[in-house]
Amino acid sequence: MDNVIDFINTNRDKYVDQLKEYLAIPSISALPEHAGDVKRAAEWSADEMRRIGMQNVRLVETPGFPVVYGDWLGAEGAPTILFYGHYDVQPVDPVNLWESPPFEATVRDGELYARGAADDKGQVFMHFKAIEAHLKQNGKLPVNIRIILEGEEEVGSANLDNFVKEHKDELKADVVVISDSPMFDRGIPSICYGLRGLVYFQIDLRGTRSDLHSGSFGGAVANPNMVLAQILAQMKDKSGRIRIPGFYDDVRELKEEEREQWKRLPFNDRRYAKELGAPKLFGETGYSTLERVWARPTFEVNGLLGGFTGEGAKTVIPAVAMAKVSMRLVPNQDPDKIAQLFEDHTKTVEVKVTRMHGGKPWMTDFDNKFVQAAGRAIQKGFGKEPVFNREGGSIPVVATFQEILGLPSVLFGVGLPDENAHAPNEKLDLGNFHGGIIASAFLYDEIAKG
Amino acid sequence: MDNVIDFINTNRDKYVDQLKEYLAIPSISALPEHAGDVKRAAEWSADEMRRIGMQNVRLVETPGFPVVYGDWLGAEGAPTILFYGHYDVQPVDPVNLWESPPFEATVRDGELYARGAADDKGQVFMHFKAIEAHLKQNGKLPVNIRIILEGEEEVGSANLDNFVKEHKDELKADVVVISDSPMFDRGIPSICYGLRGLVYFQIDLRGTRSDLHSGSFGGAVANPNMVLAQILAQMKDKSGRIRIPGFYDDVRELKEEEREQWKRLPFNDRRYAKELGAPKLFGETGYSTLERVWARPTFEVNGLLGGFTGEGAKTVIPAVAMAKVSMRLVPNQDPDKIAQLFEDHTKTVEVKVTRMHGGKPWMTDFDNKFVQAAGRAIQKGFGKEPVFNREGGSIPVVATFQEILGLPSVLFGVGLPDENAHAPNEKLDLGNFHGGIIASAFLYDEIAKG
Repeated sequence: MDNVIDFINTNRDKYVDQLKEYLAIPSISALPEHAGDVKRAAEWSADEMRRIGMQNVRLVETPGFPVVYGDWLGAEGAPTILFYGHYDVQPVDPVNLWESPPFEATVRDGELYARGAADDKGQVFMHFKAIEAHLKQNGKLPVNIRIILEGEEEVGSANLDNFVKEHKDELKADVVVISDSPMFDRGIPSICYGLRGLVYFQIDLRGTRSDLHSGSFGGAVANPNMVLAQILAQMKDKSGRIRIPGFYDDVRELKEEEREQWKRLPFNDRRYAKELGAPKLFGETGYSTLERVWARPTFEVNGLLGGFTGEGAKTVIPAVAMAKVSMRLVPNQDPDKIAQLFEDHTKTVEVKVTRMHGGKPWMTDFDNKFVQAAGRAIQKGFGKEPVFNREGGSIPVVATFQEILGLPSVLFGVGLPDENAHAPNEKLDLGNFHGGIIASAFLYDEIAKG
Repeated sequence: MDNVIDFINTNRDKYVDQLKEYLAIPSISALPEHAGDVKRAAEWSADEMRRIGMQNVRLVETPGFPVVYGDWLGAEGAPTILFYGHYDVQPVDPVNLWESPPFEATVRDGELYARGAADDKGQVFMHFKAIEAHLKQNGKLPVNIRIILEGEEEVGSANLDNFVKEHKDELKADVVVISDSPMFDRGIPSICYGLRGLVYFQIDLRGTRSDLHSGSFGGAVANPNMVLAQILAQMKDKSGRIRIPGFYDDVRELKEEEREQWKRLPFNDRRYAKELGAPKLFGETGYSTLERVWARPTFEVNGLLGGFTGEGAKTVIPAVAMAKVSMRLVPNQDPDKIAQLFEDHTKTVEVKVTRMHGGKPWMTDFDNKFVQAAGRAIQKGFGKEPVFNREGGSIPVVATFQEILGLPSVLFGVGLPDENAHAPNEKLDLGNFHGGIIASAFLYDEIAKG
């Protein structure tokens, strides 16, 4: 491995210049006027994959933007990594808040500022360079690798499931590696081994045919706003525990080991509350903040709307009221089962409950061999033992790979919590970028070792 | 009185033509482009008052539109009526829903269709014609009358309180008569002797500095939407009773006599629910629907807003949530005291509660001599004993006259519940118009008798 690492260290500055080229392509998948740029980014990715020595590189057309595929399968008997990333980026509005143009990557204070620097071109490129170093120095990789890069991650990955289904045989692997997430904190490299799932609903209530005057009719009829408030209020008790019968039945309790690990993380409730501008934190009693966010399910009212909401006072009893609610789920809660429990619980009154999107929770045991291999690689790349954390959010592709291919995923991200992934001034720490390339190079080696 | 009634019967058709002129003036006080028309309606009112024989007629300027004043004070020793009405009208949008142009009064099936036909030009004009009949036939009225007509009723009567305060001495009277309300139902003339009051609040909650992702932060912080729902839900119990401590302390219980009267009214819960398009009626147990609307206080959530309310699903924990709530009050609840009770009850959590407009409840005992005089006049004008009802809504000027002048009001309205006062196709039943002129002529006589 020494010659591989030497190569990476020697070429450190060149990598930044190469990455700048990739970042210069405004591949904003959400904006039709950038469709040509998105395709250009696909082609640039494919060209780069060929340059670094990947084989069978091609664009696979989908009803949307193409998936870039390439592989290197010369490590007979070794495990196969399926690497997933994306070449599309978020929009850049409001562009006037950017300190440097979003598509002219600029280095300031050791950070590379550009749209896509962290999410996800920079982290994809990190693997390109790790692969290149192996192939250039040794003519081979310690593992087999298949790469797929999609161009629709920022707009919901509508065509990814189908792509994976249709190419199931070509995507055979042992583990998925995804580098599209931040570390726990600056200087604290981490491996994420669990994500929450989601069920999302819209609740619609109708009381009367049309809005009524609250003077002439107040007292005669139920007020949908009030009924909605009552429905929502009864979903949680004062200690923050969700009251839907059966809701917690399948929740996998935290292991003592996990709790111990997380307790050691540098996390301070008061500082966190201050950062969020919250008077204080709140949640289910009996669990720390990180435990609640990473390993406990939630019930959130995402939206509320009913009646008169403009300036001033209007004395109306609304005809209709609406709420959007969602529940984050943890292993082993099943979205379908939870959806059913919620609907059963809600339908004690006359309401319309519409289920919207959702996804299963996910987790790999943190003593899984691939997770541990990733941990060793991070330690070698960053000179520091990583923390093993879970995440409160959901990454739908992880569920896709789990369900369609039956593969575990390793989330091997080197972004930072303040990377501004979907905001102005997105950035990638160049120290993390370099450490990430080395860690990636080691990752292949560690996975090969098993 | 016979010659007065004969005069009214003889001129019946002419009245409709005269009223059409009044209705042709688009005196929409809410729209600046109609300011000239509003003034024109004031002048038309003054001219008409001079024509029918009123004295001291003049426009009194205010910071908004003028108040039209006129009097006839020749009935020495007799009581004095202060008649209040308004010459401004509601906007007419959406104008394409009108079956005939809103300012070209049109008769169809015995109804006169025009903006202002019922609210309030038609009902003001009814009194003009009753006064005219007395003065033309007898040279005098049985009572003294002062008329004030305002031009800002449809935009909140912002200048009326000051006008009444400044002209307190010129407005001396024994009773206020207002004809600006509907009857109980077609064919059921009624006298309204009670109104509810109002307190109105906006509740604002802030959880965090900005919206948060419900995946990454769900479980860490309280959700303002949920806290709002919990605040609102605890305001009422399942039987519809308001749970604010002390809320009912000053509520005047219904008299057995009132309950008996109202029980005899032709009112059917099922038909009413069907008219409103409500699955069923709902309210405080132990009271009939009419009792709840006319004589019991309410707590209504007039508006709800928080988080994501567009199409689809967005996983957000909102930074802020807002509700508009109001309580209808009944005698002898005091808005200031109720506001204080509400604020005390709400501020068990950290919220911003802003008190908006409001008004006191009002009622005259229904055996009050003026109310009874009005009842006899209605019976003579409509050939039918009126019902004595209360109203769920509020008419702020009634409180103004009560508070500033210490005068009781008689609500002597001949509109109909389906008159479309603030909607397209406003109309006045011509039978009620004619009966109302006769009843008004008798009203002066009955009030004079005491």
